[in-house]
Amino acid sequence: MVPAPLILKPALDAIGKAIDQRFDRLLAVPDDSRARLYDAMRHAVIGGGKRMRPLLVVAAGDLFAVPRERSLRAALAIECIHCYSLIHDDLPCMDDDDLRRGKPTVHIAFDEATAVLAGDCLHDLAFEILADAATHDDPHARLELITMLAVQSGPAGMAGGQMMDLVAGEVTYDLAGITRLQQLKTGALIQWCLEAGAILGRADDAQKKSLLGYARDLGLAFQIADDLLDVEGTSAKTGKAVQKDAAAGKATFVSLMGLERARSQADALIGQAIGHLASFGPEADLLRAIARFAVDRDR
Amino acid sequence: MVPAPLILKPALDAIGKAIDQRFDRLLAVPDDSRARLYDAMRHAVIGGGKRMRPLLVVAAGDLFAVPRERSLRAALAIECIHCYSLIHDDLPCMDDDDLRRGKPTVHIAFDEATAVLAGDCLHDLAFEILADAATHDDPHARLELITMLAVQSGPAGMAGGQMMDLVAGEVTYDLAGITRLQQLKTGALIQWCLEAGAILGRADDAQKKSLLGYARDLGLAFQIADDLLDVEGTSAKTGKAVQKDAAAGKATFVSLMGLERARSQADALIGQAIGHLASFGPEADLLRAIARFAVDRDR
Repeated sequence: MVPAPLILKPALDAIGKAIDQRFDRLLAVPDDSRARLYDAMRHAVIGGGKRMRPLLVVAAGDLFAVPRERSLRAALAIECIHCYSLIHDDLPCMDDDDLRRGKPTVHIAFDEATAVLAGDCLHDLAFEILADAATHDDPHARLELITMLAVQSGPAGMAGGQMMDLVAGEVTYDLAGITRLQQLKTGALIQWCLEAGAILGRADDAQKKSLLGYARDLGLAFQIADDLLDVEGTSAKTGKAVQKDAAAGKATFVSLMGLERARSQADALIGQAIGHLASFGPEADLLRAIARFAVDRDR
Repeated sequence: MVPAPLILKPALDAIGKAIDQRFDRLLAVPDDSRARLYDAMRHAVIGGGKRMRPLLVVAAGDLFAVPRERSLRAALAIECIHCYSLIHDDLPCMDDDDLRRGKPTVHIAFDEATAVLAGDCLHDLAFEILADAATHDDPHARLELITMLAVQSGPAGMAGGQMMDLVAGEVTYDLAGITRLQQLKTGALIQWCLEAGAILGRADDAQKKSLLGYARDLGLAFQIADDLLDVEGTSAKTGKAVQKDAAAGKATFVSLMGLERARSQADALIGQAIGHLASFGPEADLLRAIARFAVDRDR
């Protein structure tokens, strides 16, 4: 097996460039009074972030030799959703964050109203990209991607998890509750990434099941690692505010399990995630490397 | 021709009931900590509004004998988008409105964060509804509805118009500018309603062109009528705050044209809109009645 850093670093660099280039073309700023809206969208999606979700889509597509031009479209779509959710999540009425990906958040760099609209527009753009024939020649595949994205970003997915998070002041979650919250808030979109690769590549049911198992374990490990970073990290390293959950008195994996157990649980989940890929050969090395990276981002 | 009130009143009552029933079924409140999110979505979409956009979809579908179960799905989708945009538009950082459809706005009845999320979830729901096979048996028809909805609610449509409106403090619009702003902000979704009927009913190009002409003139007339209501109406009649544009010093059709000319322009546009329907027989009487209603809401 190729060591993770050797395979991961160039892949992350390449996907970052590919995503930036495509957003730059998609979001040409018009010469009229909507320019501010496009500038805000560009601020949110170009030149930042780890691009982990796009890389997951492309890596899953690679398993089935999906043409990169197709998997990159699905990658753009999920990044649109991810970034729109960050813009809205950072608003003063939500998490009230000033810093994201080492830059001022959209409502700081622009204003709140523009941030709301820019998020809404990226939300639309995701569906517009997926519906286009360039994403897949089979219309049913495009519709499946669209349905899954709508479900997994809505109340039965990401937004549902955000709502659970919002009421965390009134509701006390135990480990099962936090796991459910995170499966919706973070896990649903990660699941979409792997399913998208499978749909684009016409994977069989066994392959889909493997990828879903990988997605579930990876999503949870990723969130535990995030909680660990929140406790152990610094703003300089993470590019965003830290220790907000603890300050808000919210339960996290770390507060419920303790540092040591959280760390070993994340490691165990990554082992399990990689285990789900046993039926794949070296073509899955990138997915294996991403899994290891998920818990090693800051160690 | 059947007089407008005789055909319109029962149609509005029927569509209101049909939309409410379907949203009630679609948005069953889960027994977990996401209940607040569903309650907020229900608050926004059930039991209020004129349902003009849903009625336009169904009336356009009726021209081509589209089964009501299909046109009602497209009607639900556009109502989701319309209501999500109202929720976000009413936020303190946007128009800061407390009253909508005679009820407290979502951020007043719940809170701002819940309002942002509820809007986002209705946004997703629109695409989920359209992508479902129950909307049309031809996947290409569903994809066309989805693409058009994404475009016409995004930066090239409704949200673009909202951005133009946001910067109206810095930019001074003339009549052409205001017309463009309103074509995006209000006209784009109205256009979608008519196009949706045409797509569901496999209308030919000439029929599509007629419906688009109708949509364009109706949308503009509707907005001029809104400006007139804003000047002449009262909160009790309109169910929302009035005279906000004048207070904000924003140009409107009324401020640019004067009351009399605005009123006669609205009437002329309605005549034009109805003129586009000349090739249709009595099956288009409902669309004709809607057009007359658009400028007669409060006279």
